[in-house]
Amino acid sequence: MATVVQKFGGTSVGDTTKIKRVAERIKRRMEAGDQVVTVVSAMGKSTDKLVDLANDITEDPDPREMDMLLTTGEQVTISLVVMALKEIGVEAVSLTGWQAGIQTECTHGDARITDIDKSAVQDYLDEGKAVLVAGFQGISDEGNITTLGRGGSDTTAVALAAALGAESCSIFTDVTGVFTADPRYVEQARQMPSISYDEMLELANLGAGVLHPRAVEFAKNYNVPLIVASSMEEVEGTLVEEEASMEKNLVVRGLAFEKDVTKIAIERLPNQYDTMSMIFKLLAADGINVDLIIQQTTSDHALNVSFSVDTDKLDRALEILEENKAELCYSTVRHQSMLSKVSIVGSGMISNPGVAADMFETLAKEEIEVMMVSTSEIAVSAVVPEMDMVRAANALHSTFKLDAEELEKVEALTS
Amino acid sequence: MATVVQKFGGTSVGDTTKIKRVAERIKRRMEAGDQVVTVVSAMGKSTDKLVDLANDITEDPDPREMDMLLTTGEQVTISLVVMALKEIGVEAVSLTGWQAGIQTECTHGDARITDIDKSAVQDYLDEGKAVLVAGFQGISDEGNITTLGRGGSDTTAVALAAALGAESCSIFTDVTGVFTADPRYVEQARQMPSISYDEMLELANLGAGVLHPRAVEFAKNYNVPLIVASSMEEVEGTLVEEEASMEKNLVVRGLAFEKDVTKIAIERLPNQYDTMSMIFKLLAADGINVDLIIQQTTSDHALNVSFSVDTDKLDRALEILEENKAELCYSTVRHQSMLSKVSIVGSGMISNPGVAADMFETLAKEEIEVMMVSTSEIAVSAVVPEMDMVRAANALHSTFKLDAEELEKVEALTS
Repeated sequence: MATVVQKFGGTSVGDTTKIKRVAERIKRRMEAGDQVVTVVSAMGKSTDKLVDLANDITEDPDPREMDMLLTTGEQVTISLVVMALKEIGVEAVSLTGWQAGIQTECTHGDARITDIDKSAVQDYLDEGKAVLVAGFQGISDEGNITTLGRGGSDTTAVALAAALGAESCSIFTDVTGVFTADPRYVEQARQMPSISYDEMLELANLGAGVLHPRAVEFAKNYNVPLIVASSMEEVEGTLVEEEASMEKNLVVRGLAFEKDVTKIAIERLPNQYDTMSMIFKLLAADGINVDLIIQQTTSDHALNVSFSVDTDKLDRALEILEENKAELCYSTVRHQSMLSKVSIVGSGMISNPGVAADMFETLAKEEIEVMMVSTSEIAVSAVVPEMDMVRAANALHSTFKLDAEELEKVEALTS
Repeated sequence: MATVVQKFGGTSVGDTTKIKRVAERIKRRMEAGDQVVTVVSAMGKSTDKLVDLANDITEDPDPREMDMLLTTGEQVTISLVVMALKEIGVEAVSLTGWQAGIQTECTHGDARITDIDKSAVQDYLDEGKAVLVAGFQGISDEGNITTLGRGGSDTTAVALAAALGAESCSIFTDVTGVFTADPRYVEQARQMPSISYDEMLELANLGAGVLHPRAVEFAKNYNVPLIVASSMEEVEGTLVEEEASMEKNLVVRGLAFEKDVTKIAIERLPNQYDTMSMIFKLLAADGINVDLIIQQTTSDHALNVSFSVDTDKLDRALEILEENKAELCYSTVRHQSMLSKVSIVGSGMISNPGVAADMFETLAKEEIEVMMVSTSEIAVSAVVPEMDMVRAANALHSTFKLDAEELEKVEALTS
């Protein structure tokens, strides 16, 4: 008898009809002979409603109390799913984060899981019960209720799977799996049967919203096979594992892209060893994440620094730079919005140095201006105008043979 | 520095504006130099909404899961009140039932408090913080979340007051105090400055909804001075204490009345020692509370038994009697609805044997038919037609000198 962990997100439990469907699905899985732990999020928009209540009261809600407030959302869902299971004759029990032994750091709003005391969950499984665990939440050493931040329910599921030594952790969501690119924009995109943790991590970090990076990292660290699949249809999903077992012959595995990117360029900074760290410390202190960074020295040894931020952080970033102009000693700040970032990901890149060149050649052929570039071992990202984003993604999808028809040709060649 | 416990019900925290008002009130109390623990209920109709969700899923929700579901309501309120307190500069912290150390029996839906570990609450009070505790909820020895049933938040407040050795426990509600009778029906009703635990207990049991009997009983057992007061206006409330300190010269202290009473009469039962217990065990097994009971022996030694139930239990009671007709061996069952119960309460009755006579004389003068009677040491109840209930209450209010003008006369006589 295998133990499996599965997670259903907010949309999948958005109303009582959907909750009954989740219960049916858990029942079928148990009838297949598995011990089933299910992690659920808050119902649909219920978290937003709770946030609205807090905002009615204060612009700056206390983080501890915000966690106290928001964790009620998942608690509602677990109880309703168990009621639905009992209604169809399945013995089940619900556990809040603290009841399920999810121990976290002592921070609020974005705590990391430090330990899991699996005993309560394991005991209920051994009694033959379906166990429902409230996602996104845990408890600190001081006994305070904490939350795990964005993607927290995914992390709860993966962490429980690791603690229980589960066979797999299925993340049920509103897509059928991980795609080579977002199929809403890239017509030729197709679902991947499998992908490696590292590739998934890059895709997740680069804006492919299907899985939260922290959950993928956790799965990688504890070697938990992750399955991304549809909560609506019972079709094959995508397996995320140590070594993607198929399509090894593809250098690039997937594409990610996101809009609302703004480039900020600071000109003529003093060329000192601590200039860069000063800028980015100031921004980080205000929670502004900087993505791509380009540093250039002018002919007269001044420093030009460009970086990209989310467009909604632009105003605050400009304020901070203005406030610190005297200290930073620059001449001007320019910015350009309406940009996007297009990235290619694939662990095969490490041994294929020509990939970046192929990327730029494709974009050049399409006459798409590349404004910033960044590379990692298994990804290349380019900042391009937002209006060219979809065209760039489609062209790259085709160049790197990710299109459905191309794949067949590749398979024919190598088989 | 005194410790005080106060409780605000669902209406008093019904929206964010009201929550801010509660925060202001806590602030003023702290500025007066007290250590303040505040127990709150779920916001307005939020419990009803949760119940609706459960009913969407099943007609028969699991009690453990129902407690898991419903306790989220108070958790939402405590976090919002603390946010509102911090917004106005008051250090505060929220605690769920289990965090506040409210230990209960292992039953769901109607658990009794078995113990309180006050250490967390006391520690936060000693740090100078306002402490907000989720009412109505606790935790069982097995670590399950439990609820205390109707009036549970009142009980939480009184129990915490007892555990903390608080100076008083204030129950803030939508009335300004305890009245001699419901002022919506009895024009001459007036608020009592004080009343004894026993009298309050009788009034609460007899349908005066202002306080839950269990909370009053708890207050009596631990000698916690209870104050019933308005959550809206800061005016003097009613003090509930061991010996009501005023108005000792009044034999009757208050009236209670309720409608939707039905009388069921079972005729010609066998006159056996276990007949009565058989009937009432059968009804109790189905959760049907029987109130007044009259037993009569006919001239030929058969037994006639009448009793009153809430009208909404009538159908089920008749079913049970019908199902068990063979065993019970009666001839017929009759019933009469559209009845009400009017009660007079006062600890002075013990030493004033004429009180019941005065009551019946008043009702006779008003030509109101008395269908059933029951007496306790400090109360007399009469079942009368529902259409006569308000008239009976007003007449009795006047007979027993509870009217505002009458009180002045009494005071003039005895001063």
